[in-house]
Amino acid sequence: MKIAIAQINTIAGNIKYNSSKIKEYAASAKENGADLAVFPELSLPGGFAGDLYLRKDFLKSCEQELNLLAKELEIPAVLGSSYMGENAVIYIDKKQPEPMSFKTLFGREKKYFNGNDLQTGINGFSCCIYSGAKELEQSIKKAAELAADTLLVLANEPFYIGVIEELTEEIAEYAKNFSINIIFVNGVGAQDGLVSFGSSFAVNKSGFVEAYAKQFKEDLIFADLTLNTKMQREESPKEKQVYDALVLGLKDYADKNGFKKFVLGISGGADSALAAVIAKDAFGASNVTGIFMPSEFTSRRSRDDAGLLCKMNNIRLLDIPINNIFKSFKSALLNTFKGVKTDVTEENLQSRIRGMLLMAYSNKFNALVMTAGNRSEIAAGYCTLYGDSAGGYAVICDLPKSYLYTLCGWRNSISEVIPESILEREPTAELRENQKDSDSLPEYDVLDGIIDNFTDSFSGETEVVLSEQEKQIFKMISSAEYKRRQLPLGTKLLKHSFRDIRLPVTNGYK
Amino acid sequence: MKIAIAQINTIAGNIKYNSSKIKEYAASAKENGADLAVFPELSLPGGFAGDLYLRKDFLKSCEQELNLLAKELEIPAVLGSSYMGENAVIYIDKKQPEPMSFKTLFGREKKYFNGNDLQTGINGFSCCIYSGAKELEQSIKKAAELAADTLLVLANEPFYIGVIEELTEEIAEYAKNFSINIIFVNGVGAQDGLVSFGSSFAVNKSGFVEAYAKQFKEDLIFADLTLNTKMQREESPKEKQVYDALVLGLKDYADKNGFKKFVLGISGGADSALAAVIAKDAFGASNVTGIFMPSEFTSRRSRDDAGLLCKMNNIRLLDIPINNIFKSFKSALLNTFKGVKTDVTEENLQSRIRGMLLMAYSNKFNALVMTAGNRSEIAAGYCTLYGDSAGGYAVICDLPKSYLYTLCGWRNSISEVIPESILEREPTAELRENQKDSDSLPEYDVLDGIIDNFTDSFSGETEVVLSEQEKQIFKMISSAEYKRRQLPLGTKLLKHSFRDIRLPVTNGYK
Repeated sequence: MKIAIAQINTIAGNIKYNSSKIKEYAASAKENGADLAVFPELSLPGGFAGDLYLRKDFLKSCEQELNLLAKELEIPAVLGSSYMGENAVIYIDKKQPEPMSFKTLFGREKKYFNGNDLQTGINGFSCCIYSGAKELEQSIKKAAELAADTLLVLANEPFYIGVIEELTEEIAEYAKNFSINIIFVNGVGAQDGLVSFGSSFAVNKSGFVEAYAKQFKEDLIFADLTLNTKMQREESPKEKQVYDALVLGLKDYADKNGFKKFVLGISGGADSALAAVIAKDAFGASNVTGIFMPSEFTSRRSRDDAGLLCKMNNIRLLDIPINNIFKSFKSALLNTFKGVKTDVTEENLQSRIRGMLLMAYSNKFNALVMTAGNRSEIAAGYCTLYGDSAGGYAVICDLPKSYLYTLCGWRNSISEVIPESILEREPTAELRENQKDSDSLPEYDVLDGIIDNFTDSFSGETEVVLSEQEKQIFKMISSAEYKRRQLPLGTKLLKHSFRDIRLPVTNGYK
Repeated sequence: MKIAIAQINTIAGNIKYNSSKIKEYAASAKENGADLAVFPELSLPGGFAGDLYLRKDFLKSCEQELNLLAKELEIPAVLGSSYMGENAVIYIDKKQPEPMSFKTLFGREKKYFNGNDLQTGINGFSCCIYSGAKELEQSIKKAAELAADTLLVLANEPFYIGVIEELTEEIAEYAKNFSINIIFVNGVGAQDGLVSFGSSFAVNKSGFVEAYAKQFKEDLIFADLTLNTKMQREESPKEKQVYDALVLGLKDYADKNGFKKFVLGISGGADSALAAVIAKDAFGASNVTGIFMPSEFTSRRSRDDAGLLCKMNNIRLLDIPINNIFKSFKSALLNTFKGVKTDVTEENLQSRIRGMLLMAYSNKFNALVMTAGNRSEIAAGYCTLYGDSAGGYAVICDLPKSYLYTLCGWRNSISEVIPESILEREPTAELRENQKDSDSLPEYDVLDGIIDNFTDSFSGETEVVLSEQEKQIFKMISSAEYKRRQLPLGTKLLKHSFRDIRLPVTNGYK
């Protein structure tokens, strides 16, 4: 039996688009002599569609489309869909769609689906939706009871650093230990910053991977698990995975929301340099505009580095000085601020003028504003609300600053895109004379360690004992929650991201 | 047996503060001769504390404080706390804290607690945590099995229009039908815009309410359910409830986050007028500053109305014209925008300049910026991101514009605070010559009906069939989700609020 693994990129809520994609891949599978085509979890409604799964009209549209697919598909297929209030695996074979398995649910998914342990078998295979190791083991045992020698595991797992290796090894181990063929079919593509990473594969009962799909790209691969061959699986360095996730996260957000032009502030620092290069890699340099917005505190070096970056990458760079606008604000506020000394207010004003200029460019030319705040800044609240944090997509919001340099180095090793001068320079916001990030924050490697402790403390796994410095940083992080609540979406990179933590804004826990 | 109902206002996460509050009310209950004091759901950790309930150190602090309370409380008490992974009712009587009941859970709470049907009885009473009508009926039956003649129902229910009457009638009905005394102890106070409404009460087995606590205020009342007396319960018009919720929602957000000064833009329109009056009622006029920020499109009438409003209410009004700043932006963008015609970009610039001025005032004087967008605008996206939507608290974000006038009329009937001229005027954003809201939107009563249909469609209860106009508005609402994601917190007023709906930003469902 030749099984086609259709690793497709769907759009949340766009049932017609997803259905066409399924038909296209099914046709291609048939052409290639497959007996069955398998699609990822929720491929018909699209994954991570939030409360759309609660709308009766939406669910009904899904079921209607399933019935159409049942008539139109030219090859038997297994696919993920919402079905009768469940996150279901559906079997289609020129008849009524037939539910084969329902997902075992956790946490927030229970808002959408009932959860149920249905699992049936047909033609020697059984199905489930990936829901963690414990549930997988149960599904394997159930498959054995059903005399199935192959388990199809549908998934739509989002990327975080380490997940690809973890999942592949876990599943291969199960295949070997329980002597069952497992086909893991993962979705690919990004939805509001969650990047399904692809990497589908077929592993036989000896634990050998026989087929392996691309990471972060659509793919159609075939598995015939009677062969017992072994394929070397694609090894990719962590930096490549992270970079690919960042590019796909941004690209899918833009594509699926209809943006074709992109703009960002270029400061001469490493964050905006990386964001610009990611945008170039995603859309081509001709669609990216950088804006350099110098103030009286902007150094010559920043100007040179910004210019060099854009020249190296063929990115258009506009130069819009903010001094006159800054003066007009100070003048308008002169009476109101009389007798009160200069403070962070004036720093924020500069940052917000830049945010406004970018938003104005965005409004005028329908360009997506990319913000370049990194995870370390956003955690500590070292950013200006409506200023540098303003925009449509926060490209690297989950990237720790201490790892950012490693990632830039890796990208430069492929082709030199970020000037060394930018990477060698000490981080500064340049919002006052001789300002350095280290005036306000610990060194970034120390800070990032503490931020990890903070986010880990919500995993319910560890109990954290804190030093005085850590307590102070924890407090700083908690106090910045109101800023994080107002951030644009961005790409998830870490297992414990701020996007996954629901911290109260009003928070009396010190 | 005399039972004290302690309707207290706690702070999420501030265990020490909440514990002091519990001790204070317990002491007062004892002084008044009570035999038992009952406190609301989660009164020790504070309600709606989000992912804090996942932190082991937090849960441990809670249990440690429970042990201290067990030693220190001078009267037997029943209170809500997190306990052994559960949202629990705890009995304390000079001994170890003893769990009496665990909450039956739905939806997002399952992220935090296990859920369990423990329910025990002691001294003729039994306990549960309010979790809906069906679960209440089960608890009543269980109480009967335990030979308890009184059921203590702990709650921390947030306000929405209609909930007070619904809940009171439902519970009184159950008391009568099952012939059991019920004491409903609700929390009071706001947490990140969820306003627990108080209104605790004791209803005897004849269905007579014997004691009734204040709405939207802390209270300590006593019930002796052997008396079989009937008390007339406080009737309050819907407008008073809504207004009280708005005042408490804002006040608690400010108090619990340490704000003492308040600022908002005064446009001369009804939204900012109402927001200003709510702020005055919450904090006193001397703590509220209004800023009038005229442009070339601002009419004389707006200026007059803004002035009159602030004069009537003794609110300080600053006048900061934005024309020069607007010119400085246009001049900075002159080259970039050369040959492209004026459009919404310039409207947004004006709105954002105002947002920036308010934020600058906020930064300089540590004043909370109150934004005055109403639900209708926010639903339709008829607001400028980082402009009129910028700020620390969105005072009336869940108030439909068509109801806003009714509410203003009610407030004026108490004392005249909003000039008639403001209420009589047709709504306009004044961002271009002769602009009217009705240029872009249907009449507000029509729009609000469609918005209700939209939010109802996620309740999973109704199936919506749409007209062409409705489809268009639904699309408009879906497209504005990216703006709503970046809004500040605000007070929930409706059963189906946007804050309760998790709409995807990338949304292919048309």
